[in-house]
Amino acid sequence: FLGFANAFKDTAVKFYQMGRSDPRKVIFALKMGSALALVSLLQYLKEPFQDISQYSLWGCITVVVCFEYSVGACLLKGFNRALGTITSGTLAFGLSEIAIHVGAFRQPLIFFGMFLAGSCASYVKLYPAMKPYEYGHRVFLMTWSIVMVTGNKGSKFFRTAFFRLLLVAMGATTASIVNTCFFPIWAGEDLHKEIVKNFKGVAASLEGCVNGYLQCVAYDKIPSTILTYRAYDDPLYGGYRTCVQSSSQEESLMELAKWEPPHGPYRSFNYPWENYVKVGGALRHCAFMVMAMHGCILSEIQAPAEKRQVFADELRRVSNAGAKLLRELGTKVEKMEKLDPGDILEEVHMAAEELQMKIDRKSYLLVFFEHWEESKRPKEFEDPERVAQMKDCRGSSHQLVFNSLSEAVLNIDTDQMQSNLGIPSSRTSMFGVGPSMQGMFSTESIGSRTQWPSRLSLLPDLTINEKEARTYESASSLSLATFASLLVEFVARLGYLVDAFEELSEKACFKEPTIEPQVE
Amino acid sequence: FLGFANAFKDTAVKFYQMGRSDPRKVIFALKMGSALALVSLLQYLKEPFQDISQYSLWGCITVVVCFEYSVGACLLKGFNRALGTITSGTLAFGLSEIAIHVGAFRQPLIFFGMFLAGSCASYVKLYPAMKPYEYGHRVFLMTWSIVMVTGNKGSKFFRTAFFRLLLVAMGATTASIVNTCFFPIWAGEDLHKEIVKNFKGVAASLEGCVNGYLQCVAYDKIPSTILTYRAYDDPLYGGYRTCVQSSSQEESLMELAKWEPPHGPYRSFNYPWENYVKVGGALRHCAFMVMAMHGCILSEIQAPAEKRQVFADELRRVSNAGAKLLRELGTKVEKMEKLDPGDILEEVHMAAEELQMKIDRKSYLLVFFEHWEESKRPKEFEDPERVAQMKDCRGSSHQLVFNSLSEAVLNIDTDQMQSNLGIPSSRTSMFGVGPSMQGMFSTESIGSRTQWPSRLSLLPDLTINEKEARTYESASSLSLATFASLLVEFVARLGYLVDAFEELSEKACFKEPTIEPQVE
Repeated sequence: FLGFANAFKDTAVKFYQMGRSDPRKVIFALKMGSALALVSLLQYLKEPFQDISQYSLWGCITVVVCFEYSVGACLLKGFNRALGTITSGTLAFGLSEIAIHVGAFRQPLIFFGMFLAGSCASYVKLYPAMKPYEYGHRVFLMTWSIVMVTGNKGSKFFRTAFFRLLLVAMGATTASIVNTCFFPIWAGEDLHKEIVKNFKGVAASLEGCVNGYLQCVAYDKIPSTILTYRAYDDPLYGGYRTCVQSSSQEESLMELAKWEPPHGPYRSFNYPWENYVKVGGALRHCAFMVMAMHGCILSEIQAPAEKRQVFADELRRVSNAGAKLLRELGTKVEKMEKLDPGDILEEVHMAAEELQMKIDRKSYLLVFFEHWEESKRPKEFEDPERVAQMKDCRGSSHQLVFNSLSEAVLNIDTDQMQSNLGIPSSRTSMFGVGPSMQGMFSTESIGSRTQWPSRLSLLPDLTINEKEARTYESASSLSLATFASLLVEFVARLGYLVDAFEELSEKACFKEPTIEPQVE
Repeated sequence: FLGFANAFKDTAVKFYQMGRSDPRKVIFALKMGSALALVSLLQYLKEPFQDISQYSLWGCITVVVCFEYSVGACLLKGFNRALGTITSGTLAFGLSEIAIHVGAFRQPLIFFGMFLAGSCASYVKLYPAMKPYEYGHRVFLMTWSIVMVTGNKGSKFFRTAFFRLLLVAMGATTASIVNTCFFPIWAGEDLHKEIVKNFKGVAASLEGCVNGYLQCVAYDKIPSTILTYRAYDDPLYGGYRTCVQSSSQEESLMELAKWEPPHGPYRSFNYPWENYVKVGGALRHCAFMVMAMHGCILSEIQAPAEKRQVFADELRRVSNAGAKLLRELGTKVEKMEKLDPGDILEEVHMAAEELQMKIDRKSYLLVFFEHWEESKRPKEFEDPERVAQMKDCRGSSHQLVFNSLSEAVLNIDTDQMQSNLGIPSSRTSMFGVGPSMQGMFSTESIGSRTQWPSRLSLLPDLTINEKEARTYESASSLSLATFASLLVEFVARLGYLVDAFEELSEKACFKEPTIEPQVE
């Protein structure tokens, strides 16, 4: 008994929390209760409305069936119910009239009618375009059954049909009025908020991805929640996942939003809801790149930490500019404002160009020129100073160009400066090593993995082992290039997003931005 | 009228085609019709079953409501209906009994009861875990309304309730029996087929992506169907898209499959349906990489065609091996066989290693060492022979190592050989040019794009223009590295997929593979 009481308490707490986190659910439930109670009052009507009171049950059932969460869904379902009832009622009445006149063939005719209607309605509703009207087909069949089973009793039939239709209409009207007039929950508003939320989610994911990458976040084993695509709680993952997953939800919200009357800020008929979906699609197109970047974090093949640091400033700058742009667009969508004058993309493009040029200048870090065919190898490979010079990459943010031996001194300065800044010196020692040590390092780093490309490295056969370690080593550095490329591609795709937003802002007549006086 | 006739004809053709492409839909519709017609026969029962015939309508309605496409869904809905009817009937009967004894407070009590039941049921059904039982809540409310509105008339009430329940049970039983015994459509089988189909789809997409990439398929403007995630018809896109999108469908099929009795090849209780979903998840994890590779085709930044050709053989080998592995796993899932002895991953791993080593050796193609800080630059940059030597990349499949001037002759031979093989010479002339011409080339190639990074290239300011052209140029070559990295990462992820498959094959007791006698 105590266990039962506890379970009950837990459930109550959960339901309470659900109400706290989304009060609209409580409001919806209260609205539904009120609508049902209101319609149930019809049963107490006295003469001359005796008939209505007699059939009041149909009103209640209609409310139960038609009352949906959003206004659009409620209206769509009411429409379905009305359409299904009327067409089916007419057709079935015709058939049962015929049935009366055919005498002995009556029963086979009705039997065959049931079979035919059941088959056709079930077949038609499987047609993809019929999906929003699935409920209409059920109502059609239900009404058909009612008429066929009860409907062959002369004048009483018309009376029943009339009052039934009247009560269905009253129920549907009550449901629609209660749903629309008291704290309405609009599907269109949900769509709008969903898009805004996705903008923010993708922006957060983008920053999270780049930061995580630079901090060398890695998973020893990929959580199975990510494998099965269900890691709702991971904030980095959640941001883009919602966006990537929301396509079908956006579609269905759009379908429902089209059913809603003009309201609030969406004050025109034929409001361009499909443009919201388009913006959502363009955002998703960008989110796929964030997803691919996250894939680099989840990856089996990880770039060495020191090399990531070389591009840290540029990567961060691009990600910050990208996230800022996304947030700004999100706010614009939220406030329904047009873009500010000036090229919103300029900052992020500049940042991306800088990243690309940095990669361009430092691309020797991404490849192992020791492996090139001999004629391609840089001559200074044999140079003993090379090891010292390799370190210059860490001074990169200062854009130092080293040309001669004297750099070694300068280089040490930078080194010391950096350790004063609190950058752990283990990184320094790990990096400034020759090729053989690097090989060891990467072999070690893959020791913790259970998968290829390390799988064979435990075998005694050294040639295979070496080959694989080298594969890992070279793949590992290139994976940094991949990450950067994906980020640049993300920036390139932002153009589509801005275009889609501009189209939306034109069609939906967004207001002009309020230009704040700039402090100069 | 003619227009109407044409529209009718078109619709008929569409419905006919739907039946042709998926005959199960026709079977389902016929089954539904039969079940409905069968139950409607109850109305002709004579004494002593007069009562059943009187309430036969409820049987029909139950069939209409409970008959679902798959067996699992049908059983789940029947269960919902039974549970909702019984709990609600009991509770409502209790309340209406009390209502009889409270005299004047009867009407307010019933009114309040309606409100309370409506609110609670609507609130509880919004709880995410309650989603499969959403229909049960509706039935609960419907029954509640029926009892409240009609149920206070003494002994007649029990009689009605009993026959109503009996007919609901009869309807649900008929629906279940017809649905299960004649050409059943199992949700579990659908799940199984879905996974197999996804294996094949991803394999086809993988091959398509790599081939398309090597043939330099590019979009002048990305079709808006891809932006809005709706390009169902693009075969390359469709393959992985289905897999990426199917997560919620797999989940819901799994939920339904759990309701189905053991049948056909799924002959144990507690059949591990969730492991099918896990395999689907691991496959999706791979499909994301294919998606990212497709992203390289859709990309704004495209690698030059000649460089792609350098890696063509290796890329193709990896993609063929990967697709072969996917197809083999798909066939194994289909046939429900365990893996053959031996490492199924070996071939694809070998291919990926070879690709990686090739990249390693040829990575000078991916970077522009002209842009490196001077001390890093290969000495032969200033060498006039370099231009000729650069061409050697096109002879790469023969793994020629050029060391001296004599190569130029050899090189020309390869050149001629290639033009004999029908490779257009325009590529050759486009490639073997110095850095300044290359700059021009990339400026030209981006001329057709409307987006960044070309956006500024029309401006008269040459410094910006040059900077951007260089950005494009360097990003363009690295994008080839990205493509290759993504392919390698795809291969790395295949390990998870094989693991997930092995777990499934253990838990679901797949049969041992039939080892065919090898011809030696």
